[in-house]
Amino acid sequence: MGSLLEPGSQRAAGLVSDDALVEAMVRVEAAWLRVLGLPGEVKAGALAPADVEAAGNPVLPLVKSLEIEGAHRGLTSQDVLDTALMLVARDAVGRMVVELGRVADSLAGLASEHRGSVMVGRTLTQYAVPVTFGLKAAQWLTGVLDAGDALRALTFPVQCGGAAGTLALVGQLRPDPIAAAQALAGELGLAATDLSWHTRRTPVTRLGDALVETCDALGHLAGDVLLLGRPEVGEVTDTSAGGSSTMPHKRNPVLSVLVRSAALQAPQLGAQLHLCAASAEDERSAGAWHAEWPALRRLLELTLTASSQAADLVAGLAVHADVMRRRAESVADDLLSERGTSGDPASYLGAAGELVDLVLARWEKTS
Amino acid sequence: MGSLLEPGSQRAAGLVSDDALVEAMVRVEAAWLRVLGLPGEVKAGALAPADVEAAGNPVLPLVKSLEIEGAHRGLTSQDVLDTALMLVARDAVGRMVVELGRVADSLAGLASEHRGSVMVGRTLTQYAVPVTFGLKAAQWLTGVLDAGDALRALTFPVQCGGAAGTLALVGQLRPDPIAAAQALAGELGLAATDLSWHTRRTPVTRLGDALVETCDALGHLAGDVLLLGRPEVGEVTDTSAGGSSTMPHKRNPVLSVLVRSAALQAPQLGAQLHLCAASAEDERSAGAWHAEWPALRRLLELTLTASSQAADLVAGLAVHADVMRRRAESVADDLLSERGTSGDPASYLGAAGELVDLVLARWEKTS
Amino acid sequence: MGSLLEPGSQRAAGLVSDDALVEAMVRVEAAWLRVLGLPGEVKAGALAPADVEAAGNPVLPLVKSLEIEGAHRGLTSQDVLDTALMLVARDAVGRMVVELGRVADSLAGLASEHRGSVMVGRTLTQYAVPVTFGLKAAQWLTGVLDAGDALRALTFPVQCGGAAGTLALVGQLRPDPIAAAQALAGELGLAATDLSWHTRRTPVTRLGDALVETCDALGHLAGDVLLLGRPEVGEVTDTSAGGSSTMPHKRNPVLSVLVRSAALQAPQLGAQLHLCAASAEDERSAGAWHAEWPALRRLLELTLTASSQAADLVAGLAVHADVMRRRAESVADDLLSERGTSGDPASYLGAAGELVDLVLARWEKTS
Amino acid sequence: MGSLLEPGSQRAAGLVSDDALVEAMVRVEAAWLRVLGLPGEVKAGALAPADVEAAGNPVLPLVKSLEIEGAHRGLTSQDVLDTALMLVARDAVGRMVVELGRVADSLAGLASEHRGSVMVGRTLTQYAVPVTFGLKAAQWLTGVLDAGDALRALTFPVQCGGAAGTLALVGQLRPDPIAAAQALAGELGLAATDLSWHTRRTPVTRLGDALVETCDALGHLAGDVLLLGRPEVGEVTDTSAGGSSTMPHKRNPVLSVLVRSAALQAPQLGAQLHLCAASAEDERSAGAWHAEWPALRRLLELTLTASSQAADLVAGLAVHADVMRRRAESVADDLLSERGTSGDPASYLGAAGELVDLVLARWEKTS
Repeated sequence: MGSLLEPGSQRAAGLVSDDALVEAMVRVEAAWLRVLGLPGEVKAGALAPADVEAAGNPVLPLVKSLEIEGAHRGLTSQDVLDTALMLVARDAVGRMVVELGRVADSLAGLASEHRGSVMVGRTLTQYAVPVTFGLKAAQWLTGVLDAGDALRALTFPVQCGGAAGTLALVGQLRPDPIAAAQALAGELGLAATDLSWHTRRTPVTRLGDALVETCDALGHLAGDVLLLGRPEVGEVTDTSAGGSSTMPHKRNPVLSVLVRSAALQAPQLGAQLHLCAASAEDERSAGAWHAEWPALRRLLELTLTASSQAADLVAGLAVHADVMRRRAESVADDLLSERGTSGDPASYLGAAGELVDLVLARWEKTS
Repeated sequence: MGSLLEPGSQRAAGLVSDDALVEAMVRVEAAWLRVLGLPGEVKAGALAPADVEAAGNPVLPLVKSLEIEGAHRGLTSQDVLDTALMLVARDAVGRMVVELGRVADSLAGLASEHRGSVMVGRTLTQYAVPVTFGLKAAQWLTGVLDAGDALRALTFPVQCGGAAGTLALVGQLRPDPIAAAQALAGELGLAATDLSWHTRRTPVTRLGDALVETCDALGHLAGDVLLLGRPEVGEVTDTSAGGSSTMPHKRNPVLSVLVRSAALQAPQLGAQLHLCAASAEDERSAGAWHAEWPALRRLLELTLTASSQAADLVAGLAVHADVMRRRAESVADDLLSERGTSGDPASYLGAAGELVDLVLARWEKTS
Repeated sequence: MGSLLEPGSQRAAGLVSDDALVEAMVRVEAAWLRVLGLPGEVKAGALAPADVEAAGNPVLPLVKSLEIEGAHRGLTSQDVLDTALMLVARDAVGRMVVELGRVADSLAGLASEHRGSVMVGRTLTQYAVPVTFGLKAAQWLTGVLDAGDALRALTFPVQCGGAAGTLALVGQLRPDPIAAAQALAGELGLAATDLSWHTRRTPVTRLGDALVETCDALGHLAGDVLLLGRPEVGEVTDTSAGGSSTMPHKRNPVLSVLVRSAALQAPQLGAQLHLCAASAEDERSAGAWHAEWPALRRLLELTLTASSQAADLVAGLAVHADVMRRRAESVADDLLSERGTSGDPASYLGAAGELVDLVLARWEKTS
Repeated sequence: MGSLLEPGSQRAAGLVSDDALVEAMVRVEAAWLRVLGLPGEVKAGALAPADVEAAGNPVLPLVKSLEIEGAHRGLTSQDVLDTALMLVARDAVGRMVVELGRVADSLAGLASEHRGSVMVGRTLTQYAVPVTFGLKAAQWLTGVLDAGDALRALTFPVQCGGAAGTLALVGQLRPDPIAAAQALAGELGLAATDLSWHTRRTPVTRLGDALVETCDALGHLAGDVLLLGRPEVGEVTDTSAGGSSTMPHKRNPVLSVLVRSAALQAPQLGAQLHLCAASAEDERSAGAWHAEWPALRRLLELTLTASSQAADLVAGLAVHADVMRRRAESVADDLLSERGTSGDPASYLGAAGELVDLVLARWEKTS
């Protein structure tokens, strides 16, 4: 449709666009040619929207454009499209991991620098006991590290089952059809699976869950930045600083806003994938498969965009430790009421410093 | 991102694309110029993705490209974008109503033709008592008429509040700022509203609810067609008949599949809009506004595409009344067990015919 | 399951509990007896969970417990359960309208009292131009009035179609089966419908949409109260003031928190209802009907609870107009930068006062 | 609210009810007493709904009822409630794993018995190529094994951070506060975590994702059973056989219907948890935490109920291999059109048998 309503999506476009998808489908068909031991160079012709609709998916028009004897034989449309989407997802997730690494590095720097920067803790919007900004950054960092672990733990399996998951036609072409399916995985660097997953969509939902988890972590961070950056609070500044169309003084926290916006969208997209998985039927779903595609692509685009935006946001985050300290000191009596004796808020930080150290130690191991 | 994963979306592209959005924003800015009594012809320059991201929305880059003294003055970005989206929505909904009219006309024909076509009724997947295909078509038709009523009842309000909803700057430019806002509505043929709805998103959620209701009605129809068109049932045929990439005999019910797919997607998109409304804050939401845009556009695209596909589907639907009757007769004893006396299934149809007539009478009134 | 995890749900319990549901089902069966002209007093026996599960719904066990010759004859389980849920919904919505009236009255009072209470406007978390607290309250009020309109516009139809929507068995018992269905509606004070809606779920989704819209309006209000009540802002106080289990000084804004929590839950519940409508099939859905029930009951409970809590919240809301004014004056230059000339923030309020008056005029008409 | 609208929920009630929750909270408080080295026997008093609402959660009323000097000291409400919910979840998940084991055992039996039972494969509702019922059962089994793996891989961490995650008050009571938190985990058999997760909700969302994945797998199975059990297909029978309130011949596939219903509900509940995680803020969320509770409990109840129902369903599933074979033979030409030579459908099964063997080998290893 376009991208004007998804600000920042140009950060992901090259990896999730129609062109990227077609290139991935071409890679699948080419790899399959090699598995079958057939010659030919696979090139995609233009795919007319009307042809895509008439076929119900983009694979049939692609195959028709190939003009290579024996190409695609043994595969079904779903083999090609699911595998191509896994290639697209793998590349997008690979890039996300890099972007999350940037986020993590910046957060580790903040956690370390502000290990002792005392600030008010807030629960249910009200002042609670003192915390440190270092601990807050360490919490954000832990979320990002967890998300990175989840993304890295994903497997991206090949889809190769033939018309109904039995590899029957492949068995006519190659002596060992399961080995042929595994060879396709090998050609593409994807995970081999014995069984096709045409209507058992765990690979898609686990991918989706990890993407939503990533957006959760980034949304938590961005939401806190928005709260701490309110002018009445003034404890951090998102320096991305978008302007206003009418007010010259305005400096809008654009990146925080966009990352939070992504986090508000991801859960619905993840639910869409689960709903499709739950409604799977027969050997290929009549609608539940198709309803996955836009949600999966959009979730990849959204998460990659948000990861990259979050990296810029955190790299540019200005932390006003002096404001934090002054506020904490000004309400010290409240902050220490739990302890029962008043004093310096910095004297009631419990294990905050040690907790920061533990998170930083984890970060060092993964980076 | 593209359209290969949304088969049929070319049916809606002209109304919801980036180009359509830019054109709508240009219409808003031009109408505002007229309200202000200023000369100038509004033309949009190209909007660079990086500029859109830096601003957080496409309005600021658009305004910068206008190069007209005083243009946009008094408006805020949200005024322009919300109003433009309402223009886009109004046009898309207008087109939907036409497509739904096509669906309704075909369904009315089927209901009338098959007023007495007896078939098995099925509840919880099992045979219940006899029904008619005419009654089934009348039920689908009622859903479509209800959706059409809901769409026609929508209002598309102008958004015009200035920086924070007070029309303060407009008040510097025009003697009666509320009248100026109403004049903008008049110029664009939108509904006037006294109050801005920057963070009171009922116009968006009501639009979304009507769109989802439309997809519900179409999904109900398409789901039934898929069940009745299974080869073991064979009571209808979706003649859109997409082929298979590997099996020459296959005739896939492509349009039914795509319409059902749309219906599986719409509820999440509608929920997204409500979630944003529920999270609205201050005088402009920091993320909850932005998270609306892709969901709203996608829901418009999806519903319009599905409406148009459903019109083709129903127009081409082949109904096998003979198969229906034979099946009903073959299990007549079960179908009549509720009555306690056996006989012809057609002798136990209750008010089915009269109910069809009532629905057709309603249809005639609306068409 | 219980209610400890839904604080405040005791406010709705009497209207949506199992007991209320059984009573409603009994009312339906009793009304049907009267329609059939049969004697007998309908009393429900205890419904064993295992029997409910074995039947797949609570109606069959209920009917078995009735011990009245001819009772229930002509109806199907879904007729009774859907109609009973509409009775439950009607009563709950009726109570909601009363609670929303309390919210509206309090908000009208605030809007009027603070028609001129200047405060900073905030967009994307940052200071924009001046607004008034009266205008903010008028915006909340408009949302609440819109929701009240939507609730009052709902129709609660009877469900009466017999086994598969044809009224076939009713036609064996009464001369005019459609008239009998209408008589059932009349007995119960529900809307008559010609056609059953066993698998055309618009009455359920429209109910759901209005409930979610109500929660949206209340969530908007509660979210703003939470932001304005942060100690750094201090412009309002939610005086519901829950304590902390560990910190003696804490005063938590409990009602705002719970109302916001409700608003975060409602969209998913509404989507559940639409998803079931979109997946409807045959003459009774095998699962999509059942998945509606808990979502609908929970949404009724949640919305009624939140409406009642919001009424208490707004009635007890303390507004600190002096804090608002001081803040606005302290950043007057920024707030007026759009105008280009500095001064008193109260001099740049545009149509704020007039807009408040318009909303109050609407409120007066509806109350 | 009750359970009449959640048929079968009595299967889970003992593990997720209010009583189970209170018992879990009592265990947490008792374990904490032991960590602090304090004497006393913890018993819960009755928790009045109005007190729960006034506090915003059930912990404060519980603590007030304890009447033990020093009890709860060092903990915050969220420590107790989150930890109690993890105890509840752990027990429910433990029981699910057992139920899924029953499902898996039955499916393995079916896969083995029907390794060679040829049937038509169906894609997009139409006949494709031959498959075996053994392969279909093996696909269902793989989904169930994957879900079981996901559930077993879950960790259930203790929540122990004190008022704002720093363990500050614990540090006043015990020499090593982090060790005290770990001791609490040890007392309860939960996973120790260094860092509190008050507003970093990965433990909750990962739990939710695994529960939804479980429902997906069961819904896939139940949906297929419903399709194959339609009277026109007649290839399997769900023998749970609920009756009808009006039609004596009806045998409704109650368990399949209820399991499918669960699968249609789970995705929204999982999305609710992610949405709360994405909206987390400060050191305790004002609403986003509270909105988790009902969704988490309901998802546990739903998944456990569905697991248990699915075990009964599959144990009682009647498979009609003769019907399958006759159908496949009757359309053999279509089923073999891909191969290009006609014959016995059983001659075109590709690797189906070997794939079944691989799945059975996996099952044997895990059981």
